Amino acid sequence: MQLIQRQDIKAIQPKSESFQCPEVLGANHFVPLLDGRHITQIFLDNGASTKPFRVVSDFIRDIEPYYSNIHRGTGFDSHFCTERYEQARRIVGEFVGWDSERDVVIPVRNTTEGMNLLANTISFAPGDRVLTTILEHHSSDLPWRNKAKVEHLPINAEGQIDLKELERRLDPAKGRVRVVTMTGASNILGSVLPIHEIAALAHKYGALMVVDGAQLVPHRRVNMRPHTDPGHIDFLVFSGHKMNAPGGVGAVVGRRDIFAAAAPYQPGGGTVGSVSTNSVTWAAPPDRNEAGTPNILGMLALARTIQVLEAVGMDKVEAHERHLTSVLLENLSHIPQVKILGSRDPNGTDKRVGVVTFTVDGVPHGLVAAILSYEWGIAVRNGCFCAQPLMKRLLGVEETCSCPSEEETSVRGDRHNVPGAVRASLGIHNTEQEMETLIEAVSRIAQKQWQGDYEQDATTGDYLPRGFRFDFSDLPGFDTEPTTHSSTGERHLKVVHGLL
Amino acid sequence: MQLIQRQDIKAIQPKSESFQCPEVLGANHFVPLLDGRHITQIFLDNGASTKPFRVVSDFIRDIEPYYSNIHRGTGFDSHFCTERYEQARRIVGEFVGWDSERDVVIPVRNTTEGMNLLANTISFAPGDRVLTTILEHHSSDLPWRNKAKVEHLPINAEGQIDLKELERRLDPAKGRVRVVTMTGASNILGSVLPIHEIAALAHKYGALMVVDGAQLVPHRRVNMRPHTDPGHIDFLVFSGHKMNAPGGVGAVVGRRDIFAAAAPYQPGGGTVGSVSTNSVTWAAPPDRNEAGTPNILGMLALARTIQVLEAVGMDKVEAHERHLTSVLLENLSHIPQVKILGSRDPNGTDKRVGVVTFTVDGVPHGLVAAILSYEWGIAVRNGCFCAQPLMKRLLGVEETCSCPSEEETSVRGDRHNVPGAVRASLGIHNTEQEMETLIEAVSRIAQKQWQGDYEQDATTGDYLPRGFRFDFSDLPGFDTEPTTHSSTGERHLKVVHGLL
Repeated sequence: MQLIQRQDIKAIQPKSESFQCPEVLGANHFVPLLDGRHITQIFLDNGASTKPFRVVSDFIRDIEPYYSNIHRGTGFDSHFCTERYEQARRIVGEFVGWDSERDVVIPVRNTTEGMNLLANTISFAPGDRVLTTILEHHSSDLPWRNKAKVEHLPINAEGQIDLKELERRLDPAKGRVRVVTMTGASNILGSVLPIHEIAALAHKYGALMVVDGAQLVPHRRVNMRPHTDPGHIDFLVFSGHKMNAPGGVGAVVGRRDIFAAAAPYQPGGGTVGSVSTNSVTWAAPPDRNEAGTPNILGMLALARTIQVLEAVGMDKVEAHERHLTSVLLENLSHIPQVKILGSRDPNGTDKRVGVVTFTVDGVPHGLVAAILSYEWGIAVRNGCFCAQPLMKRLLGVEETCSCPSEEETSVRGDRHNVPGAVRASLGIHNTEQEMETLIEAVSRIAQKQWQGDYEQDATTGDYLPRGFRFDFSDLPGFDTEPTTHSSTGERHLKVVHGLL
Repeated sequence: MQLIQRQDIKAIQPKSESFQCPEVLGANHFVPLLDGRHITQIFLDNGASTKPFRVVSDFIRDIEPYYSNIHRGTGFDSHFCTERYEQARRIVGEFVGWDSERDVVIPVRNTTEGMNLLANTISFAPGDRVLTTILEHHSSDLPWRNKAKVEHLPINAEGQIDLKELERRLDPAKGRVRVVTMTGASNILGSVLPIHEIAALAHKYGALMVVDGAQLVPHRRVNMRPHTDPGHIDFLVFSGHKMNAPGGVGAVVGRRDIFAAAAPYQPGGGTVGSVSTNSVTWAAPPDRNEAGTPNILGMLALARTIQVLEAVGMDKVEAHERHLTSVLLENLSHIPQVKILGSRDPNGTDKRVGVVTFTVDGVPHGLVAAILSYEWGIAVRNGCFCAQPLMKRLLGVEETCSCPSEEETSVRGDRHNVPGAVRASLGIHNTEQEMETLIEAVSRIAQKQWQGDYEQDATTGDYLPRGFRFDFSDLPGFDTEPTTHSSTGERHLKVVHGLL
């Protein structure tokens, strides 16, 4: 493979010259290619998970010696961690415009858990309905199905719902709508829903407004607005791992009174007031809703990440990502074989985030993704992105479009023709040059230009280059016995960072 | 305060001269005292949370640049993380003697979540009973109460149950016992229950055996034994944060068939096979039970921590802790004012872990803990340790012995006389010299020798030295704006590590 020849790249949105991204660990590290070269990876799977900010990783490293459990410990470290943990809670709440009196911040592992927490906290009466959209990630759809009748609003070609249709569905004559739950930004189309307009309608009919902020909060300033505002968001859920926070913590921010009205989703240590063998009184929220030892370092990492994003400025984050999205849309849409799902308007980036999902005529999505990885060092994702109902409609297919577990697919058999698409999802560290390389790569693939001889694994549907597998043996892992005794400043495991 | 004068310390168990502890971050750092000095902290709150091994912290730092979401990503980093994650799962399973065919390893945030997962996965019929003990932490008691009739077996003075009584309770004439769930080691008395004998009885009567391993797995070799062994453990739950793993991940290890027979506790992304707007098929376990993005780095940290413990040798960990426990019991029990809860036999460390809980006649538990912290730099915990039914019995009181949330207690008012005790819980990094200092400190406190003028906060019950608060302003935190741009190798936040 030769050095990459750039196409003429057309830019629509003005470039934000001033944007300086904080260092993201691994944003520019080298990965091997099929042809034996190593190349700087272009990481475009940020919609799944982002890589950590270095300064946040450093921060946690500095905190670790003081790590101790919180609340009831009497040592210096426990007092310290308790103070920092409660500061972190406030930072998270303030980032999304909470009302510290009327809202609580509950740390969760991820948005999925947050949605399950809400579905098991909000009270439902028989016959209650939940309105959502066909856009939803399974994680903000499935948790509600055990609790109420879930109805999915359709979307138009731009990935937007019809507010008039929403209002018709809110008609109480059809049964009370207890919850309106919608994604803030689609994890496939990138479309940003008008969450405050939707909330105002929900409130007009007495429903609660829940927003899945997983794809929105990392990319746009989100403000829940005062409780007195009709467009107020009752509950906002988001994940730290999608906003450059290491450590597996997200948050539910929302109404204290709703949490106070329900028994805890997970009872256990910390959630109680008093306990006997046959009775229990619950602690007040948020304690009631934090069962067992929380992920303290994860919560601190999330708060510090938010401080980094605030220091950069969410307006700058937005401008940077909109510029890159515009470049991507403008140029990908000019490749004849490429079909972008949802809006392809490079001027419409005010209504979308930098999630761009596409198919390439005549090249299966799994093969496109494999070539991007093995021949261009570009990390994307392909498949149905945990939103099968939407993908079936977008692709106009009725075949099963599934997120398989290994065991299950080995039972179910042939996955040669599973429908799906390729998703490039932008992160704060991405650059215009990276967009150019992606466009060039997709353009070549569309012209059936690639090197490898790929074979499909019938049970997973993945494409793999014949006779080649990534080799992780020199990377940090479990194959070497750990050095149990450290010498100051010395690293104990071989790390490969710049092989070129 | 003068330099500490050592008592003559009596040792019963042989000292394990060869024990070398891997470096634990913060194990020896300095903390401030009331008198203005700084002293090396003695961290004895390991039963709540342990501090991370340095080599594991380094390991995660080395992994972070490669961090990516797992399973469906096609980039190099995603392939890498997927492989390492599945390796980690196997390491966790092997550590406790899983059957890789018949068991699964499900990462959870902590033992509390693990117990909630099991209580919501195992099927119950009306009238089913759950047998547990009065020893239990709330987290392995409360989750079952919504699902079945929970009965608490009494304990004797050594913190052991009567197996004959257990068998009487297993009598199916009283209703089917679906689950026997017991702590492996008490978080208050330290008593280690004969889990395999109990399992054999449970199985004899067709019950499932669940073990809360939170206090056991970090301190003793635990082997679930083959499924064909009557003493087999069906489900073992434990927490990484109590075994020197940073990152908020624990595990449930146990029967695949039980997970396969139930819908997921938390539905969402990753848990499904196929989804339409009105139907869903679930993925096979463990995918079915890992909703949303798992705490990938946390899981890797847990596995690496296990490798470190294995490299040290769990037999050595046990011998070291038994020696220290013996020193502590022998010498504390000779202080006339000190009452140790449960067994005080220094020769009985084969039946207990290094959790030593005590009261001091005439000195409230909160005051003992405060003096240890502010005048000796010793971190312990006091109160009821999330096991109120047990504490009420041990202390012979009927007063509410609660784990308060700040909001609730401010409503409920006076907590001056809340009963409780002081707990010193050992970790791998503790030393005999630290035990000697603790014994000296408790001895002085028992003789009413302390410096500070302590006042009790009536709403929390905590004792605080008048006119003195710990100052965290120089420690890593949120008060400084983060440096968003790193220079190589440079740290961005002021760290105070050795103030002396």
